[in-house]
Amino acid sequence: MNKIAHWLCLAACLAAVTLRAAVDPLPSWNDGQTRQSILKFVAEVTTPGTSLFVPPAERIAVFDNDGTLWTEQPAYTQFYFVMDRVKAAAARHPEWNTQEPFKSALTGDIKGLLTSGVQGLVKLPGAACEGMTIEEYDRAAHDWLETTRHPRFARPYLECVYQPMLELLAFLRASGFKTYIVSGGSLEFMRPWTEKVYGVPPEQLIGSTVRNKMELRNGQPVIVRQAEVDLVNDKVEKVLSIQRVIGRRPILAFGNSDGDLPMLQWTAAGGGRRFCGYVRHTDGEREYAYARTAAVGRLDKGLDEAGARGWTVVDMKRDWKRVFPFEAAPAGR
Amino acid sequence: MNKIAHWLCLAACLAAVTLRAAVDPLPSWNDGQTRQSILKFVAEVTTPGTSLFVPPAERIAVFDNDGTLWTEQPAYTQFYFVMDRVKAAAARHPEWNTQEPFKSALTGDIKGLLTSGVQGLVKLPGAACEGMTIEEYDRAAHDWLETTRHPRFARPYLECVYQPMLELLAFLRASGFKTYIVSGGSLEFMRPWTEKVYGVPPEQLIGSTVRNKMELRNGQPVIVRQAEVDLVNDKVEKVLSIQRVIGRRPILAFGNSDGDLPMLQWTAAGGGRRFCGYVRHTDGEREYAYARTAAVGRLDKGLDEAGARGWTVVDMKRDWKRVFPFEAAPAGR
Repeated sequence: MNKIAHWLCLAACLAAVTLRAAVDPLPSWNDGQTRQSILKFVAEVTTPGTSLFVPPAERIAVFDNDGTLWTEQPAYTQFYFVMDRVKAAAARHPEWNTQEPFKSALTGDIKGLLTSGVQGLVKLPGAACEGMTIEEYDRAAHDWLETTRHPRFARPYLECVYQPMLELLAFLRASGFKTYIVSGGSLEFMRPWTEKVYGVPPEQLIGSTVRNKMELRNGQPVIVRQAEVDLVNDKVEKVLSIQRVIGRRPILAFGNSDGDLPMLQWTAAGGGRRFCGYVRHTDGEREYAYARTAAVGRLDKGLDEAGARGWTVVDMKRDWKRVFPFEAAPAGR
Repeated sequence: MNKIAHWLCLAACLAAVTLRAAVDPLPSWNDGQTRQSILKFVAEVTTPGTSLFVPPAERIAVFDNDGTLWTEQPAYTQFYFVMDRVKAAAARHPEWNTQEPFKSALTGDIKGLLTSGVQGLVKLPGAACEGMTIEEYDRAAHDWLETTRHPRFARPYLECVYQPMLELLAFLRASGFKTYIVSGGSLEFMRPWTEKVYGVPPEQLIGSTVRNKMELRNGQPVIVRQAEVDLVNDKVEKVLSIQRVIGRRPILAFGNSDGDLPMLQWTAAGGGRRFCGYVRHTDGEREYAYARTAAVGRLDKGLDEAGARGWTVVDMKRDWKRVFPFEAAPAGR
């Protein structure tokens, strides 16, 4: 009986694999070098019996979020959320009217905000949401994302994700990969929606964090956000947090800015076949065109290194049939 | 064809479930209230169509390690490893001959070590292994665990794990749970072996950490341990790290000391059915008998709270047919 169950399972799996192969896993990607480099890599590491084969447990894929999986222009989505939270909390903080970066946040001055630099900006999410329980924060983020629209695309932010990258995430998972997001954005800001939108569950997210504390409210333990920043998950910190949370070196890494470069270098330095990819924003018409001198999402050193080392650089304009899910679906290949 | 594959898969799964139900999942547990409380809980949360049903993605189970999954007496296993590492590094640190906790570590004085308190003890793993890459540390821990034996049981430490808890971990996973270890011990000290011994992969481990840094050695990026302690993952920190790494509240938590109490309280405070368990060390003959006044693994407040709230308290002597895998297997039920 046990053997029969085993045989039935094998037959079902083989049937499923055969059926899957007939369907194009990346319909929104134009055929060309970029798409082929992805298909080739996945075929290489998933074909049993070859020297390049990687067991499923070690098929770790890491993705940056802002600018890699969803749009980060004219500024990070989380900026807009935090600015609204700063406004909501401003009555309790009259000093914010004169202190940066709060002053710029209150007047909606993105340029002013950006001049505060990372060390200034990271103060905002902590200060704006201090004292909220994780459930309150989760609900606030969720409600905001449901009701607020991108200033240019006039769509909810959760629709401003890249359709080709959704397909890539799903294709990797169908090929036995475990997909992680490793973002400089706030961990708790991603938690309410990445499973629904990207298929990435809460335990496969790594992001920036504020210090939390546990306290009793109405006799029940709750986790409460504090103002103090715990981790700015950017650059080398991305590598260290991957080691801390996952404990395995990724075999595929995708980013779009210099902040992702150490993560790609760390991925590339492992043995066997590795895939390092950069999304390059070349499409000012359908999305945005920016790279080497951008204030948000600068890709300069990373582009040089990608060229020197033969990493895959996705040219949005050339490689993607459509950018967002709300565009018309492309005709079948 | 798709329908046939689907039908074959269903048939195979049903056959597998039927086969599994006939096998006792907890053969090393004496039948009684403790074993029944586990079986009842798992049946309740995994039976579809009831109000207590929990979807597989939310079946998060967290386990302390030292004293819950393996023996922690006469002192934490990691202590012995770290003492050996302190000796190995002592030539570079003549000041350790007079400074605590290094002095006690060098003379193998466990009592002296314990008087340093947590704040003293946590200095050791960082200082002793400063400058090692994660691969070097991994190999050192692995080699040490292969060659060093428990002072009383004269077995390699990796055999001094609790057979009934191995069965519980496997039973939970077979019931769709995701099992995590949330330990006060060092994260990197667990990484080399928990998958092999407990079936818990590297990405389902949470533990204490030192700061790492990334640097270039021979042109390759490596992650290097520093002396500075980053996180002592005990008490409330266990709750905060569960939120940070998993992002879901567990529905089952198992510990053995007061350091696990906040984790159990946090688990208990969620909605629906929850399981909180304490392993109580009552068997001085087969293992150790200790609880309320122990220097290592004190269980005092936790025992009171377990009594008041009706949590499951495993009485090792009464509830376990055998403690370690190296004991003779019990006869079938």
